[in-house]
Amino acid sequence: MADIDTNQANERALKKLLEAEPHWVDLGIAQDVVPGMKKNLILHAGPPVTWEKMCGPQRGAVMGALIYEGLASGPEEAEKLAASGDIDFDPCHHHDAVGPMAGVVSASMPVIMTENKAHGNLAFNTLNEGIGKVLRMGAYSEDVITRLQWMEKVMFPVLKRAINALGEVDLKEIMVQALQMGDELHNRSRAASYILFTRMAPYLSETSNDVTETNDVFRFMEANIHTFLGFAMSSAKASLDAIRDIEGCSVVTVMARNGTDFGIQVSDTGDQWFTAPAAVPDVLLFPGFTREDVNPDIGDSAIMETLGIGGFAIASAPAITTFVGGTMDSITRRMLAMYDITVGENDVYQIPFLDYRGSPTAIDVRKVVKTGTAPFIDTGAAHRKPGIGQVGAGLVDAPMEVFEKADRALKE
Amino acid sequence: MADIDTNQANERALKKLLEAEPHWVDLGIAQDVVPGMKKNLILHAGPPVTWEKMCGPQRGAVMGALIYEGLASGPEEAEKLAASGDIDFDPCHHHDAVGPMAGVVSASMPVIMTENKAHGNLAFNTLNEGIGKVLRMGAYSEDVITRLQWMEKVMFPVLKRAINALGEVDLKEIMVQALQMGDELHNRSRAASYILFTRMAPYLSETSNDVTETNDVFRFMEANIHTFLGFAMSSAKASLDAIRDIEGCSVVTVMARNGTDFGIQVSDTGDQWFTAPAAVPDVLLFPGFTREDVNPDIGDSAIMETLGIGGFAIASAPAITTFVGGTMDSITRRMLAMYDITVGENDVYQIPFLDYRGSPTAIDVRKVVKTGTAPFIDTGAAHRKPGIGQVGAGLVDAPMEVFEKADRALKE
Repeated sequence: MADIDTNQANERALKKLLEAEPHWVDLGIAQDVVPGMKKNLILHAGPPVTWEKMCGPQRGAVMGALIYEGLASGPEEAEKLAASGDIDFDPCHHHDAVGPMAGVVSASMPVIMTENKAHGNLAFNTLNEGIGKVLRMGAYSEDVITRLQWMEKVMFPVLKRAINALGEVDLKEIMVQALQMGDELHNRSRAASYILFTRMAPYLSETSNDVTETNDVFRFMEANIHTFLGFAMSSAKASLDAIRDIEGCSVVTVMARNGTDFGIQVSDTGDQWFTAPAAVPDVLLFPGFTREDVNPDIGDSAIMETLGIGGFAIASAPAITTFVGGTMDSITRRMLAMYDITVGENDVYQIPFLDYRGSPTAIDVRKVVKTGTAPFIDTGAAHRKPGIGQVGAGLVDAPMEVFEKADRALKE
Repeated sequence: MADIDTNQANERALKKLLEAEPHWVDLGIAQDVVPGMKKNLILHAGPPVTWEKMCGPQRGAVMGALIYEGLASGPEEAEKLAASGDIDFDPCHHHDAVGPMAGVVSASMPVIMTENKAHGNLAFNTLNEGIGKVLRMGAYSEDVITRLQWMEKVMFPVLKRAINALGEVDLKEIMVQALQMGDELHNRSRAASYILFTRMAPYLSETSNDVTETNDVFRFMEANIHTFLGFAMSSAKASLDAIRDIEGCSVVTVMARNGTDFGIQVSDTGDQWFTAPAAVPDVLLFPGFTREDVNPDIGDSAIMETLGIGGFAIASAPAITTFVGGTMDSITRRMLAMYDITVGENDVYQIPFLDYRGSPTAIDVRKVVKTGTAPFIDTGAAHRKPGIGQVGAGLVDAPMEVFEKADRALKE
């Protein structure tokens, strides 16, 4: 393709991306609603990976999911089953889904169903488990499994009644607001979680048919400042899926990591993955951990930066700068560099303290390669061993190699 | 007093102000809990004022309160009664209370009870009615009265059960968070309202004994982004009352307006008011109104600036800059000037985008007079006629005359 055609294709993609209208429309159980989902299939974050090459926290999450599904009675049996060949593994992205950190989705898990009303497509993500020892960070202890079961048996029906009574929730509008309230919607979605909670509460109350269960759900959501992350990620996925397969378009549609490899997909080249080894993020560690504990970059949550927020809007979230170990000034500079590698600016996702400038949107593979500036991601970090959990949060650049590979493929 | 003694007194006042621990501890009915409250007494915002000198919106609110209390059957009877001499008028500030805009508190109204745990004193404020046609803006139509009755008969017991089950809420902690989430806590308390709602919801749900009533309260609070204003104002009042009557102290303890006069009180001079005519704020008008419609500056809500937030922290709230008709840059400059007239900086009320600088705290009368820089307030604006309501929001400087008067009194 000539550059001029690619420029036109990219402008079309940007326009379509800005037109996205992600709405939360329902909750479902994965095997009932996620395309191709089945009992012996485990979805995971990032590009394809075999059990043999899978990193510690993703293995831990798979083991936890097999126990939760009743396919294994404990960690040892789960590990054996995972390695047996009887379990299929597939990226979430092959099933219109995204998953944070390990990104494991199994058949019985409740999933958020987010529709891009401008395009008609659905995207899926699991409900957030909270912080600490959680499946997405590779933990699989009994309390983790018990919580997942409670989420399926208690929280899911309570929330489903509420969203069905409410009808749907305009997630884009919440994200617009949250970017003016200290969130960048990757590492911090506190304001968005409060807004969603406030919007849901009357419906949770009205549709309650068991006071104790409803109260438990209220308490769980009240305590979880990451509730919105799953909604943000499914919004980004639903928005970006509308710009897949545009001929000649060099815009990145997926950035995802499985803790072993970092992979991207690009509009023109459809489902093709371009991968390279995942880097270890530059992490502000929780007490008691060292840099040697940090697993390489992991999770589908880089879909937020692919959309043009998260790290690409980090100047919206000053509280995150200290959490990830930066200063406001140094971090804003890294964010500003993202305008050099994107097609345009968002019309509603804006950064108040950059005079409401729209966030840098639609990563152009050609610009990344030409400028040598890699997309900048702010992210959580998991322990490299299964069963432990989060060790901190930090910053990481996407590996240049994946963009160079994609650039070559686009030129062919 | 020598300047050196006053400096020491002011430092003591600053320390005491920073030590304040405002907690929401209960709800009560005004006549049961507000000192000196009685059936034929109406409290109002600002310094003392007679019915004859009272401005339109404050008159409107008084008339509404008399109808609500059942002391008058309609506006005409209420106006006659108010002028008859049978009704006493007193500033909220004479009763440990504060009121937004007209600031009217009558005997049957539910009030927030906020305790400064570091000092043991209580402060009171009414519950927020929402926006549009509301009593605090001078409206007294039937829907306004019906809402006030609902707030007393339905909302009050529902909320009281919830706060009593919860015990108490640390309001300072919420305010600290909200200043990092786009609020300046005078014209904008959206984040704080969401946080408080989220904190309350499990207790509202658990203590419900009438599903319909609880649902109505959920809906009312969900829709009201100003819920927290009453809590912010009572927090500021409870904090500042701890630094009254410090010998030689030139720190302002009250800035308040009744729509006719602007008044301040100063620590050393205790209950003495220093007043001057209230100025008309520089207002971004709602559609359909002109500058001639704007009532002079009104409300006890300048207690927020007295504490050192509101306009003094406006760089925390970029969304407010457009709402009040300024630019980020020009408004931040006006805020920065407040450091020249204050004793110090807050240790926890911080402005993220000024590199977490503490907000300018404890207005020193001497510095105001010496620099010629008046405290800067961002405020709502009411129509000058009774019965109409809000016409916009804007910015206003406190009149220099009140500080000059206070400065002279301090020197005597």
